[in-house]
Amino acid sequence: MPSWLEGLDRRARLRAKAGLTRRLRPRSATEDVVDLAGNDYLGLSRHPAVVAAAAEALTGYGLGATGSRLVRGSTDAHHALEDTLADWLGTGRTLVYSSGYLANLGAVRALVRPRSLLVSDAHNHASLIDGCKISGAETRVTPHLDVDAVEAALAGAPGRPAVVVTESVFSVDGDLAPLAELHDVARRYGALLLVDDAHALGVLGPAGAGAVAGAGLAGEPDVVVTATLSKALGGAGGVVAGPTELVRHLVDTGRTFIYDTAPPPAVVAGVLAAAGLARAGDALRAELADRAGTVTRRLGAAGLAVSAPAAGVVSVTAPGPETAVAWAADCRDRGVAVGCFRPPSTPDTRSRLRLTINVGIDRADFDRALDVIVECAP
Amino acid sequence: MPSWLEGLDRRARLRAKAGLTRRLRPRSATEDVVDLAGNDYLGLSRHPAVVAAAAEALTGYGLGATGSRLVRGSTDAHHALEDTLADWLGTGRTLVYSSGYLANLGAVRALVRPRSLLVSDAHNHASLIDGCKISGAETRVTPHLDVDAVEAALAGAPGRPAVVVTESVFSVDGDLAPLAELHDVARRYGALLLVDDAHALGVLGPAGAGAVAGAGLAGEPDVVVTATLSKALGGAGGVVAGPTELVRHLVDTGRTFIYDTAPPPAVVAGVLAAAGLARAGDALRAELADRAGTVTRRLGAAGLAVSAPAAGVVSVTAPGPETAVAWAADCRDRGVAVGCFRPPSTPDTRSRLRLTINVGIDRADFDRALDVIVECAP
Ligand SMILES: Cc1ncc(COP(=O)(O)O)c(C=O)c1O
Ligand SMILES: Cc1ncc(COP(=O)(O)O)c(C=O)c1O
Repeated sequence: MPSWLEGLDRRARLRAKAGLTRRLRPRSATEDVVDLAGNDYLGLSRHPAVVAAAAEALTGYGLGATGSRLVRGSTDAHHALEDTLADWLGTGRTLVYSSGYLANLGAVRALVRPRSLLVSDAHNHASLIDGCKISGAETRVTPHLDVDAVEAALAGAPGRPAVVVTESVFSVDGDLAPLAELHDVARRYGALLLVDDAHALGVLGPAGAGAVAGAGLAGEPDVVVTATLSKALGGAGGVVAGPTELVRHLVDTGRTFIYDTAPPPAVVAGVLAAAGLARAGDALRAELADRAGTVTRRLGAAGLAVSAPAAGVVSVTAPGPETAVAWAADCRDRGVAVGCFRPPSTPDTRSRLRLTINVGIDRADFDRALDVIVECAP
Repeated sequence: MPSWLEGLDRRARLRAKAGLTRRLRPRSATEDVVDLAGNDYLGLSRHPAVVAAAAEALTGYGLGATGSRLVRGSTDAHHALEDTLADWLGTGRTLVYSSGYLANLGAVRALVRPRSLLVSDAHNHASLIDGCKISGAETRVTPHLDVDAVEAALAGAPGRPAVVVTESVFSVDGDLAPLAELHDVARRYGALLLVDDAHALGVLGPAGAGAVAGAGLAGEPDVVVTATLSKALGGAGGVVAGPTELVRHLVDTGRTFIYDTAPPPAVVAGVLAAAGLARAGDALRAELADRAGTVTRRLGAAGLAVSAPAAGVVSVTAPGPETAVAWAADCRDRGVAVGCFRPPSTPDTRSRLRLTINVGIDRADFDRALDVIVECAP
């Protein structure tokens, strides 16, 4: 075995010892499982209207976009989605990417100027962290949700352009950033606020327009929003939403936009249908909030350390990585899929189960799934 | 207008002056255009079997994968595609990503060790360049196709782990890297060779297995291949192919794999069908080679500066960015879509038309399109 593969093998054995080996487990189209692990919060990925819209575009355009957005990849569906998202989110314009990951890389990089300081929450998603890294700008990581620390970082860089970078609903624990306070501080120091609204789009805010809209910040000229189209919208892709000038800048210069194949027209058309349903989905959101409350009460009453979710993500602390894996496996054996997050996928060293609320699941199945989680607890 | 938007606006005006403004132009499902701009080399994006496979998966699984591969995103379709690609490419294992861009970021980063040197061809794709950047490793850029320069770079870093990073068929000019020589040099210095086979997969090599296979390097333990599934395979997504140990490492630690939503099952299923057709597509490849020869002869005879394509990408030099835009616009007005590449999307300061061969286009339409390009030449 060549030495580089030996090296990889050695590291794999160390991970195995620490209980940090990951395994890909395929699911079939017909598996019989109650899904408390995916991010299909509103159950739209299987909504007949979403599937029908995607199928129609598949027939009309074929499978792939066949090129980058600027070459052959822009279809009517892409433009319709961008217009719809801009209207919904209340921003000047939006730009659709093939993933939320690439949208975040593009957004952070576009906001950086010479001498910029990035102020990034300690729990931020890997794509935001990578965006900070690839931007080349100096990055100050502030303690989770700590507005005072953000202010201190900005105060310590007078005269420098700065961007405060945060998620709204954090992806692992489901807690919500204090967006209005962060915006206050940012504005006082002339900084921009970049919010990844991935887990709030469709779930929080007026008509599900997200946590930024919920905080009254929609359309503010110093706020930029990113999101993925793969969670409440049930599809795939990402979006950057902000002032028209920013979108023009990204179209002309954004590397992860220009040099990437556009998302498939069928996916975009399906997401467009989902956006309409999500926007009109106040009843779905009420049901989601109700279920989130039930999870907290039910698991809390059983003595589990469970978070109070701001949206559709609930975190339950596990004693350690191996117990977390065993807990999740026991649940799966009893027909319940739960997320199992271990380092390095956790913002700290704690392993947890990550539960998500999917209102597409039958309520009785959902309630039974909570019993299973309690019964399998280590 | 806030100062950051003023700054973006100022830069937009500078780009406009330099003829470097880009415009997104939507196409409809029914547009009547001969496409010499997309990357659908084998015409598979609209192949009935591809569309049918995608439609079936769409009905079975719904639209999105609903999570990352490790959480809920791995379906039978993803695993079948990975097995098929590994068998076709003759590598230990493969790992599917949501885009070729994220596959490249993941691959470069995974190959870097402490003190690594990356040796990167000057014409490499943005995603490889970004991969080098985000890896944090020292990167030496060598002149395009210059094996001696690669050797000098490796010789200048004795005892350090190194990776030679290149495309096979370069995306803008369509020329082919000397893969066998690069591998010889790399092996002599104990370096790895990372090849982005995006524009060769399905087009070159035995049974279309790519340029790496064509150079006799399939399965070599010091060679890693990446590709996109959005070009000859007509879909979307990316892949890393290499030794089993590498794929295990990526599953356990690769950020752009772990923290990204899996590509939609329907897209994956469509690509799986396309892979079967591409593998059996020797007749399609013969037709593609024939058309490539025709382009060079026809445009060359008309006095245009046209490249001799190694695969399906042909480059035609334009006098400048504005003339390139006008040339492409004239072609489009006459029903022919061609790519128009200007800085910074070109590896040098030359603007060009970029033509692609799509064997799904009727041959008579294809030949007429070449006449249009000649007649519109500035
Ligand atoms: C907060 C957050 N940002 C970005 C992403 C990346 O989006 P995508 O999966 O579309 O790449 C995710 C999840 O995948 C996420 O949870
Ligand atoms: C050489 C090369 N590598 C990588 C990519 C990126 O692949 P994707 O479009 O799937 O992100 C492309 C084109 O898009 C390419 O031409």
